[in-house]
Amino acid sequence: MTASPSAAGCGRITLLTDFGTADGYVAAMRGVIATLAPSATVEDAAHDIPPGDIAAAAWTLARYWQLYPPGTVHVVVVDPGVGSERRALAAGVLDRFIVAPDNGCASVALAMPDARSYAIRNPALLREPVSRTFHGRDVFAPVAAHLAAGMPLETVGPPIADPVILPSPAPWRGPGTVHGVVVHVDRFGNLITNLPGGWALEIGEIEVDGRTVAPVRDTYASVSAGQAVALVGSAGFIEISIRDGSAARELPAVRGATVRGSLR
Amino acid sequence: MTASPSAAGCGRITLLTDFGTADGYVAAMRGVIATLAPSATVEDAAHDIPPGDIAAAAWTLARYWQLYPPGTVHVVVVDPGVGSERRALAAGVLDRFIVAPDNGCASVALAMPDARSYAIRNPALLREPVSRTFHGRDVFAPVAAHLAAGMPLETVGPPIADPVILPSPAPWRGPGTVHGVVVHVDRFGNLITNLPGGWALEIGEIEVDGRTVAPVRDTYASVSAGQAVALVGSAGFIEISIRDGSAARELPAVRGATVRGSLR
Amino acid sequence: MTASPSAAGCGRITLLTDFGTADGYVAAMRGVIATLAPSATVEDAAHDIPPGDIAAAAWTLARYWQLYPPGTVHVVVVDPGVGSERRALAAGVLDRFIVAPDNGCASVALAMPDARSYAIRNPALLREPVSRTFHGRDVFAPVAAHLAAGMPLETVGPPIADPVILPSPAPWRGPGTVHGVVVHVDRFGNLITNLPGGWALEIGEIEVDGRTVAPVRDTYASVSAGQAVALVGSAGFIEISIRDGSAARELPAVRGATVRGSLR
Repeated sequence: MTASPSAAGCGRITLLTDFGTADGYVAAMRGVIATLAPSATVEDAAHDIPPGDIAAAAWTLARYWQLYPPGTVHVVVVDPGVGSERRALAAGVLDRFIVAPDNGCASVALAMPDARSYAIRNPALLREPVSRTFHGRDVFAPVAAHLAAGMPLETVGPPIADPVILPSPAPWRGPGTVHGVVVHVDRFGNLITNLPGGWALEIGEIEVDGRTVAPVRDTYASVSAGQAVALVGSAGFIEISIRDGSAARELPAVRGATVRGSLR
Repeated sequence: MTASPSAAGCGRITLLTDFGTADGYVAAMRGVIATLAPSATVEDAAHDIPPGDIAAAAWTLARYWQLYPPGTVHVVVVDPGVGSERRALAAGVLDRFIVAPDNGCASVALAMPDARSYAIRNPALLREPVSRTFHGRDVFAPVAAHLAAGMPLETVGPPIADPVILPSPAPWRGPGTVHGVVVHVDRFGNLITNLPGGWALEIGEIEVDGRTVAPVRDTYASVSAGQAVALVGSAGFIEISIRDGSAARELPAVRGATVRGSLR
Repeated sequence: MTASPSAAGCGRITLLTDFGTADGYVAAMRGVIATLAPSATVEDAAHDIPPGDIAAAAWTLARYWQLYPPGTVHVVVVDPGVGSERRALAAGVLDRFIVAPDNGCASVALAMPDARSYAIRNPALLREPVSRTFHGRDVFAPVAAHLAAGMPLETVGPPIADPVILPSPAPWRGPGTVHGVVVHVDRFGNLITNLPGGWALEIGEIEVDGRTVAPVRDTYASVSAGQAVALVGSAGFIEISIRDGSAARELPAVRGATVRGSLR
């Protein structure tokens, strides 16, 4: 890591959690950070990740972590194993920092070739006593604050060679067809697949769970309201939508549904 | 526009979207802004506008855009037509900026006499390649960042003389009665009408959809818990509430419901 | 109050409300603050407190207010009595400020021995005209902005000797048993009780509403997925959880449920 947030005189921290927006958990993390790194800018990424949904956190983090400037500290706390033996980690990758439980929720960043992960073990960095149920407040927030204030990454603890990386289902091609799965369902009910956007020009139609058919088009506006359409979404993958509707609700389909594309 | 956000050494940007708080779309916009305008302050206005509900966005924007100081850049992204031929615009009005799709979601500001609207066309301002589905990240966020950093408004592209303005239903007066509609339903289930608050003193009772009756009073506390009441709301219009309850759920009524007031 | 936020050249304000994230109410408060205290940092604590739920606000505030640094201004607006004769108050306690309606929503801070409360009466501080329904915008936001900018607390109005403090149910001990209630249910469905964490070592099992039994353990991981467990939560009290599930939904139980622990 050569980028130093302290060079700018302050740092930037983003928070991604499953804590929701009705309890005081996010504010507790913010309070800890405000005390330790008062000039850091703290931004909410999203807090309504479904409780304990590590895969949803990983997908969401992928949408923004590289868009932030070098030096940004991205905190991810979706942590169903809190209090168990699962490790806590801080990592440097592409000049950004990741602070998260070692359960795969930050897979997308930690899987990059230049990622360097460290186990959080340095007791001087933690809020004492560390609770058994809320490491967001007691472990991840203080570590993020120290990193944003310029602390060297290696201070957190020893290197980790094998951070947990979620398996990422690979799409595949058969004769005349391509195959994949729905990897995320967003608020609009869009079904985001693992079929790369670069394949879109070759595909005529898409089936979901072997039954629903959507033509591949360029934009939502290419079909009428209420019609299904497949297009290249903002994450660079093919997604299935219903114009002015919800594909997830109306097809219906859920994460993990199989997707098949017929080559033109 | 004479107010320059750069005069303050930084800028302020607000974000109003229908992206929800469970995906990474808001964070993607924030990341783009953080990179282009690192010293700008970015504030979440609201992100749970019902998907694609342009009228709700317009109503919500009206609640706050003038309360922010001159120079503020208000971004509104409720954009069901993304990827179609709908224009993107940036506008200056009352020394604030508006950045939004040209679909009416910023009507309340663009309808002001001194509003000056410009089509966003300057490719140097956009994130390349511009996706077909997420102009919040690729168009509106970078333009807002540049404006917050002091870029002249005219840089975005050519003037627009005819931005889309949503029709605004006008209340009217008959013999002994006044007539309007419910224009917004808020989280508390309050039914906000288009009847101006200045008429409240003349009105004795209010009907919704021809059947429910609420007396016009000064405060919620003028009726018992569970009772309906009409009063002048914080937006300056008459609204119908149920004390310690939800008028929307308990009457019930929805946006567009007709409202009739009996003059005293 | 000796801590002065102006000493740092700016101030910090947190916002806790029941305004939700779909209307413009939070943004209206932020706009007022941005105009009056442009260099203040404004942080969202939580906005999805159930409408009018004063007890939930009080519980939530307790989770973070002392974690923020001295000088922070904590605003709480859960205000079902807005427009009635209920007082508005600003208080100084442990070098932080509280700004809230005088209805108990800030009990946890106002009950501290060194709390000094003042009625907000100074008309020069308010947004004119003060609406009957939205004191968040017209009263609490401007007062918070002035305090963050360094205004002496006493400027708001006369002292209050008797701010509303919510009754706090006390746990008690019988022969071989301890007794309490569920005081909060969080997003994860955890049932947080008023049984102090210090009692956990003495308790073998916990009953909720006289029927469900959970063993007292150290961590979620001590039981299998789907099993109930009681442990010391991050607030320092015993809470009942279902691992990878929701105790509130699956037992089921709600706030106010009685809790009985059997001593070992």
